[in-house]
Amino acid sequence: MMRIGIDLGGTNIAAGLIDDGMEIVAQDTVRTPPGADAIVNEMEVLAHSLCSQAGLRLSDIECAGIGSPGAIDPREGMVVYSNNLNFRNVPLAVMLSHRLDMTVHIGNDANVAALGEFHAGAGRHISSMIMVTLGTGVGGGIVLGGRIYDGFNGMGGEVGHMAVVKDGEPCSCGRNGCWEAYASATGLIRMTRSAISRNPDSLLKSIAIDKGKVSGRTAFLAARRGDAAGNEVVEKYLSYVACGAANLINLFQPEMLCFGGGISNEGQYLIDRMLPMLEPELYDVGDRRTRVCLAELGNDAGIIGAAMM
Amino acid sequence: MMRIGIDLGGTNIAAGLIDDGMEIVAQDTVRTPPGADAIVNEMEVLAHSLCSQAGLRLSDIECAGIGSPGAIDPREGMVVYSNNLNFRNVPLAVMLSHRLDMTVHIGNDANVAALGEFHAGAGRHISSMIMVTLGTGVGGGIVLGGRIYDGFNGMGGEVGHMAVVKDGEPCSCGRNGCWEAYASATGLIRMTRSAISRNPDSLLKSIAIDKGKVSGRTAFLAARRGDAAGNEVVEKYLSYVACGAANLINLFQPEMLCFGGGISNEGQYLIDRMLPMLEPELYDVGDRRTRVCLAELGNDAGIIGAAMM
Repeated sequence: MMRIGIDLGGTNIAAGLIDDGMEIVAQDTVRTPPGADAIVNEMEVLAHSLCSQAGLRLSDIECAGIGSPGAIDPREGMVVYSNNLNFRNVPLAVMLSHRLDMTVHIGNDANVAALGEFHAGAGRHISSMIMVTLGTGVGGGIVLGGRIYDGFNGMGGEVGHMAVVKDGEPCSCGRNGCWEAYASATGLIRMTRSAISRNPDSLLKSIAIDKGKVSGRTAFLAARRGDAAGNEVVEKYLSYVACGAANLINLFQPEMLCFGGGISNEGQYLIDRMLPMLEPELYDVGDRRTRVCLAELGNDAGIIGAAMM
Repeated sequence: MMRIGIDLGGTNIAAGLIDDGMEIVAQDTVRTPPGADAIVNEMEVLAHSLCSQAGLRLSDIECAGIGSPGAIDPREGMVVYSNNLNFRNVPLAVMLSHRLDMTVHIGNDANVAALGEFHAGAGRHISSMIMVTLGTGVGGGIVLGGRIYDGFNGMGGEVGHMAVVKDGEPCSCGRNGCWEAYASATGLIRMTRSAISRNPDSLLKSIAIDKGKVSGRTAFLAARRGDAAGNEVVEKYLSYVACGAANLINLFQPEMLCFGGGISNEGQYLIDRMLPMLEPELYDVGDRRTRVCLAELGNDAGIIGAAMM
């Protein structure tokens, strides 16, 4: 039977109709309106749109799932809070369930994307996986035995909020030295700006001027063209990525650790440069080692994972 | 039915006969001899001794379990390696199983102690627990849904080898900045020595001279008596304990995090001083928070946990 997967973002709501083979057979996207009621309205419209694309009725759909930013209580169908959406204790899944007259699950967006990758992407045919999303922040989802691992209260798996530099850079969560403060695009941009100011004659600076801004791509572009300042930033940034990844592997020994999110668009170059930094950090476990790779599904992971909850 | 639990240490082998109520009904200890064959011999002697204490025959015993230091492959019944025992690829559980003619399980000693605490100690009646042992090193065991979580290769849960200070103090594992390098007795002693050299007139130094050595207790003794230098060491040490504990809670959200090992003999004083440092480091999860407390079983945890595998 078909399921509906909804990826709720701060900017857009993307929804898809997923078949038993975990393929997206219909898809639609709208801008995210302000407020919970308006969001639920748009989700209902999306559900009808997907059904009409596929020639189905809503009653033909098995269930729906929502991946939402923020702290989620999956058992209560509740967004406990989300800075992005300006939500506190919003029973989003319950509200949508009443509208669609079907079961609606909800989970944290990073967890849900990991579930999608596990079932239909990089994690097919393995037993356990951690997906790390290197985006504006650092998110993560832990999948053990085919299910999201989220702790006794549904809020575990905050891989970005593991301190790797005690008393280090301030993080958006209020803590200092979190992995997110270094391994996110935000952290990379901070390192890039600092290198630009120290290297005014570098290609790194020229690229930033050409593009009109410093982004998470600037240092990678410069490094790929052989610029020393860009290379230094990439080296430093990836050493932080490797540090947190090694922590996760030493703790969880998952069969796979995969990277998604905007920075992972650097592709195999990112993995190939990071692995030599990662390996010496790993606890010696003999031959059965975690495979480190890229996520495969991109934005589809959130939609497929939401449907698979 | 009765089970045998064996806690294999670098110095002693402690074994106990455990009944269905998870009580130790007979117990014995021998010095750890060098070499796998001699160790298995001693374990066999211990098993017979326990049975004779309880008026049972070996055939009355359901199964046995061994908690061993080092990297363990529980599926193969193997110590993959252990620095303490100078073992590499020793099928210890298989060897003992042949001698006793019963099923013998094996697990990492920290994991096994956590399982004991979960079933018979601080973790009774809860769903998930991490036990952290603050000893010469920092060990840990993760119990999820009543079972040890040890990753896809049986070697997960190395909580001590999570870096909290990237590029920090060298750790015995070869990495730098591991939690173990700060939160272990070894780390505490290093901080204490450093404070003594900076504070030659302190009570901290007098205590070290009186006792003839610096130990993991020195700074706590001085701090409890109001010494400023001792207090500063305890404050610093506990801030590292809190940092790693916050990482574990943000990642796992276990229902309970409990502390065992030699340093945990400081008791509630340790918990009471650490909690105010821990709480601001935690990701905001609302009301359902991890309970942080002391382990209850002391050395018995290893014996009971070994029997419960």
